[in-house]
Amino acid sequence: MRIKVEELRAFCMDILTVTGMPEAEAEILTETLLQADQRGVKSHGVMSLKRYVNLMETGVMPKKLEYKVEVDNPVIAVWDGNRCCGQVLGHTAMKAAIEKAKTYGIGFVGVKNSNHFGAGAYYAKLAEAEGMIGISASTGDPTMAPWGGAEKQIGNNPLAISVPTKEALPVTLDMAQSVVAFGKIANMKRQGLKEVPEGWALDENGEPTTDIDKVYSVMPLGGYKGFGLSLMVDVLSGLLIGGGTGVRANPDQMGPAHTFMAIDTGAFGDTEEFKARMDARIAEFKSCRQATHSTGIYMPGELEELCYEKSKETADIIPEIVEDLNALAEEKGREVRLHEV
Amino acid sequence: MRIKVEELRAFCMDILTVTGMPEAEAEILTETLLQADQRGVKSHGVMSLKRYVNLMETGVMPKKLEYKVEVDNPVIAVWDGNRCCGQVLGHTAMKAAIEKAKTYGIGFVGVKNSNHFGAGAYYAKLAEAEGMIGISASTGDPTMAPWGGAEKQIGNNPLAISVPTKEALPVTLDMAQSVVAFGKIANMKRQGLKEVPEGWALDENGEPTTDIDKVYSVMPLGGYKGFGLSLMVDVLSGLLIGGGTGVRANPDQMGPAHTFMAIDTGAFGDTEEFKARMDARIAEFKSCRQATHSTGIYMPGELEELCYEKSKETADIIPEIVEDLNALAEEKGREVRLHEV
Repeated sequence: MRIKVEELRAFCMDILTVTGMPEAEAEILTETLLQADQRGVKSHGVMSLKRYVNLMETGVMPKKLEYKVEVDNPVIAVWDGNRCCGQVLGHTAMKAAIEKAKTYGIGFVGVKNSNHFGAGAYYAKLAEAEGMIGISASTGDPTMAPWGGAEKQIGNNPLAISVPTKEALPVTLDMAQSVVAFGKIANMKRQGLKEVPEGWALDENGEPTTDIDKVYSVMPLGGYKGFGLSLMVDVLSGLLIGGGTGVRANPDQMGPAHTFMAIDTGAFGDTEEFKARMDARIAEFKSCRQATHSTGIYMPGELEELCYEKSKETADIIPEIVEDLNALAEEKGREVRLHEV
Repeated sequence: MRIKVEELRAFCMDILTVTGMPEAEAEILTETLLQADQRGVKSHGVMSLKRYVNLMETGVMPKKLEYKVEVDNPVIAVWDGNRCCGQVLGHTAMKAAIEKAKTYGIGFVGVKNSNHFGAGAYYAKLAEAEGMIGISASTGDPTMAPWGGAEKQIGNNPLAISVPTKEALPVTLDMAQSVVAFGKIANMKRQGLKEVPEGWALDENGEPTTDIDKVYSVMPLGGYKGFGLSLMVDVLSGLLIGGGTGVRANPDQMGPAHTFMAIDTGAFGDTEEFKARMDARIAEFKSCRQATHSTGIYMPGELEELCYEKSKETADIIPEIVEDLNALAEEKGREVRLHEV
């Protein structure tokens, strides 16, 4: 169902500000939700609005940004996020990392005691928009077992990297360290499917399963390599700054911890030359002979960029989500409603 | 076949110095080769000695380290490696990154126009030994197709991250972005095997194959995610500093380009507290209930550390390699020989 982006924006702003979020902060959270839907990443779009409203109403998440700077020098910083909104913390921290990167080429801001920050691509793209390489990562709720184990002990710890280009679409990798998102299997189950493909999931005994009813944890990508990658996100986003990892990253405990890093391409050489090199490398891949059953050769994030281009005026929202959101507005006694275009 | 480590050391030193490498540089290259064999990573051990000698004798690789500093500030540097020995450049560059990290917490040295640097773990561990987190990465010869493509255009671009601990063994992830190393399939073929497991390789048309004779490229881990990760190593190690990627990383072209990064845990808080957090997180994983068919829960690099502990005096070397090395010494008119213990 297509909804006007401006209507979605006004809707989110109304709900968030009446919940008590300051306007400037509500604008950031709203923008991250809209961008996710416009990029076709529905799991991190307006679907999550109610969740964040709940976190504020139950007092888990303060309504107003407040954080404590524990470490700060021209290159790095460590912030205690006071369990504030992950998106507002993330936006503010990446902007700080970008400023730092202007001095010596690299800026690194770690944020602990945060909340779920949504789509990691949003923060990485803030740096990309400034001609920098942006990197964001976060610890998260356990969805995977350590390699060889049977219990969920580590998150699929998303990592996003965004890279500026000249004429080509910017390249943005945004990936979790599991073969598949847990939510995807949950959706398949809701649709009545009985099987998941081989290599996706483990049962309660840590053994591979294709029976959807026996799925307990998702498998790390590439087996032990994906566990290793997720552990390194635990280290760099969490343990380095004393932030939550594993169960401690749950919303009812410390909450997740994030890393925001900006690398100024201009400090390493000429930014325009870098962008031209990116374009040339992309053109090389695009000219590759396609595999027999290929549907095309796409760079990381390219399909999302193409979706965004088509969603500047209206975005595709799942009808049930529109219903839920309109019910939320009614419940809160607000007049805003979402309408199909 | 077990050979005394000191005999291996004397052997490599003799061959390298007589080839014309300055002693201090031969010591670095020798140490990287021995460490790889002692850690059980045979593909990057003394097996490669002849290859590096050939590179020097054919003039592809200058015998003496010489590099040009293109960028240098308190945090980052870019070096043109003049096609010198990748191990000597890598050791020197990581040491420089460690020095830089002492100022503001992060040091980042990029090296282009290098040569094959062997095992990435070696450089990452130099930082780990100083209580820092070490990261090394390199572009490499194409072994993979872009996702959806049929031609080899990108390397499996190794990434190594090493993390210090208190009592636990240090954690060192050292991985390529392909499901399996190309060399492993070549070895299987030499052993007369006819099949590779599903999900390892593609044929000339970019279609999955299990027929060992049809293998053309190796698959990226996790499909498009592994391609994305490899592309990001291309960006951070290669394109950022104007270094070789894809075919340009071949020894007969620009050669590979590397990244060396050191993150000083002491700049983000207390190093001893960080190490204790690492130990606690590792203990948590170790206490996980094991999967039914598990052979144990190991941290990245743990098996290599355990192998190293058992290889302080003698290392296991493949008999054919010992033969080849003794033949090389004879060919060069040197008296050194390797003997089984």
